[in-house]
Amino acid sequence: MKCPLSVVVSAAALFASCASSTGAIGEPKSLAVREVGSFHVGGGQVSLSGLPVKEVAVQQGTAPIRIDPNGDFEVHQMYVQYIRLVAPKARYPLLMWHGGGLTGVTWETKPDGRPGWQQFFLTAGHDVFVSDAVERGRASWARYPEINSSEPLFRTKKEAWEAFRIGGPDSYHPDVARRVAYPDGQFPAEAFDQFAKQFVPRWTTSDRAIEAAYEQLVLKVCPCVILLHSQAGAFAATLALKHPERIKGMVAIEAFSAPDPATVEPARFARLAGVPFLFVWGDYMDAPAFWRRSWTRVKAFSDALAHGGARVEWWDLPARGIRGNGHMLMMDRNSDVIAAQIQAWMEQAGLMK
Amino acid sequence: MKCPLSVVVSAAALFASCASSTGAIGEPKSLAVREVGSFHVGGGQVSLSGLPVKEVAVQQGTAPIRIDPNGDFEVHQMYVQYIRLVAPKARYPLLMWHGGGLTGVTWETKPDGRPGWQQFFLTAGHDVFVSDAVERGRASWARYPEINSSEPLFRTKKEAWEAFRIGGPDSYHPDVARRVAYPDGQFPAEAFDQFAKQFVPRWTTSDRAIEAAYEQLVLKVCPCVILLHSQAGAFAATLALKHPERIKGMVAIEAFSAPDPATVEPARFARLAGVPFLFVWGDYMDAPAFWRRSWTRVKAFSDALAHGGARVEWWDLPARGIRGNGHMLMMDRNSDVIAAQIQAWMEQAGLMK
Repeated sequence: MKCPLSVVVSAAALFASCASSTGAIGEPKSLAVREVGSFHVGGGQVSLSGLPVKEVAVQQGTAPIRIDPNGDFEVHQMYVQYIRLVAPKARYPLLMWHGGGLTGVTWETKPDGRPGWQQFFLTAGHDVFVSDAVERGRASWARYPEINSSEPLFRTKKEAWEAFRIGGPDSYHPDVARRVAYPDGQFPAEAFDQFAKQFVPRWTTSDRAIEAAYEQLVLKVCPCVILLHSQAGAFAATLALKHPERIKGMVAIEAFSAPDPATVEPARFARLAGVPFLFVWGDYMDAPAFWRRSWTRVKAFSDALAHGGARVEWWDLPARGIRGNGHMLMMDRNSDVIAAQIQAWMEQAGLMK
Repeated sequence: MKCPLSVVVSAAALFASCASSTGAIGEPKSLAVREVGSFHVGGGQVSLSGLPVKEVAVQQGTAPIRIDPNGDFEVHQMYVQYIRLVAPKARYPLLMWHGGGLTGVTWETKPDGRPGWQQFFLTAGHDVFVSDAVERGRASWARYPEINSSEPLFRTKKEAWEAFRIGGPDSYHPDVARRVAYPDGQFPAEAFDQFAKQFVPRWTTSDRAIEAAYEQLVLKVCPCVILLHSQAGAFAATLALKHPERIKGMVAIEAFSAPDPATVEPARFARLAGVPFLFVWGDYMDAPAFWRRSWTRVKAFSDALAHGGARVEWWDLPARGIRGNGHMLMMDRNSDVIAAQIQAWMEQAGLMK
């Protein structure tokens, strides 16, 4: 067993993590896998009628065939891929939920080609379930305006560069050579275009469908621990309140939102007493301004959890001496330092065998 | 090691496969995995301008933010997920290419929940690369009509039920209980709606972009063996002719199309001399009528390959005593019988160490 020299921020956390790994961090000598597979969950049948029939050649050089767009469709399902270990060291499967305009690829790889957190947490001994929420990736998407009421949004590179805090306002440029990332930023900015290939369109009118499918997932595979990012924060928090017996721990990476505690019956928080929650935030939180609003919303929720008896930790990474992380911190150069600390937190929280 | 009793159609093929597996078919006791990950390949930057700016609340309960849809996007990339073994028994990685209106999920699972061919061929000792072609799944999709020139098609359940030969003409019904599958059909028809959750929209104007990204994939990870389905047939055949030194074998499951040999310089076929090609076809090939046209197109290509010296096998499954398979034969109840025969063919073709 060896541990990378760069992983020296928290020696205690590091050793806890290394000791529990089957090999070096992110570099398993051999991962003993029992099963790989996937499934769709949630959603249901919707029928359309009254749309015009067309003749279409579905592949170049082939004869046109009659396409009738009217009929039955499965819509609003989500996609889940799993890798189960022969001998998991974690007590519960780890569900990895991505953010808005993205898919489960968030966890599979890093834009500079290093292994993603999926492999990290597999190596640390977790059965891992990586999903694509309703409307994106392998979950597919439903026709609009007939089924989804709005059109989708396509995130530009500039919007992502700024919103994900790769660089400050107006530091993006179409020409890679002329982009100015934060000088101490940890995102591999030279590989930003590779990251942009992961972007998928998003709808703003599908929250209920997304949450409903996540609920079916929770009912199917939990008790579990949820590792979530950004948009998934509100869904995970809502489902923890609704199914507290199924949520054994939660790690929220820059959750974009959470339910307003004033709208939640206090007894619901008490049902999460003893459950470990970890909230993780990166650097540069004051530009753009909406991130501090996210922080404030999520802090109120976190405080209500703690008041109800949950075991809450709130990690402001710069305050812990870890600087330069943006919103996609699971892809940053120091991302495995953070993963190792999360793994150590899980061990301390009793989530490992 | 044990082999399921139901897998008795071809004892020779079966034993070849079982002997080379790390455990029972589809049920690895332990798969020694070296690395899991994914990447995007192909495509590039496209810029849009002149579209109206909007104010949008991107999640319920959060304040609207300004969304400018103008700017730069990565488009026409494809997505590839890989699982590499510690000690592969195959000489080359196995690339699994899905059909139209579908994604790599085709290979990951079966609608009735049994493990997919991804796990089968991992268990047999192949490093496996499962991809989503341009325009679908985790490859994302580009805005239309600004980037993709046409709107997408959404396949209805009725169209899929008939086109994929689950049942005959007009045997589909919106009510599951009233659908009439072929009585001797091997598709798990009771799970057809679960299969329909895998459907994704498709474009008819993106063939060149799809082929360009597949070419980048071939240049990145081959020499390789390609296991393809349906729509991918034409892309794989075209790239085999273009990069013969990189294609060490090909298994075409119901290829929808292939280049017309009359349009190909004969010397190109000669460059594939010695390369093993296997073409596999299921049952019920005469309804709907377009399948027999696919068969005829692909047979002409196969004959030209054989004439050029490639080692071609053409499997008409009913003629081999295997009946009841439709277009999604990798999901059929007897699908692992077919996989075992394909694995045995690979061994005989010298594709294993």
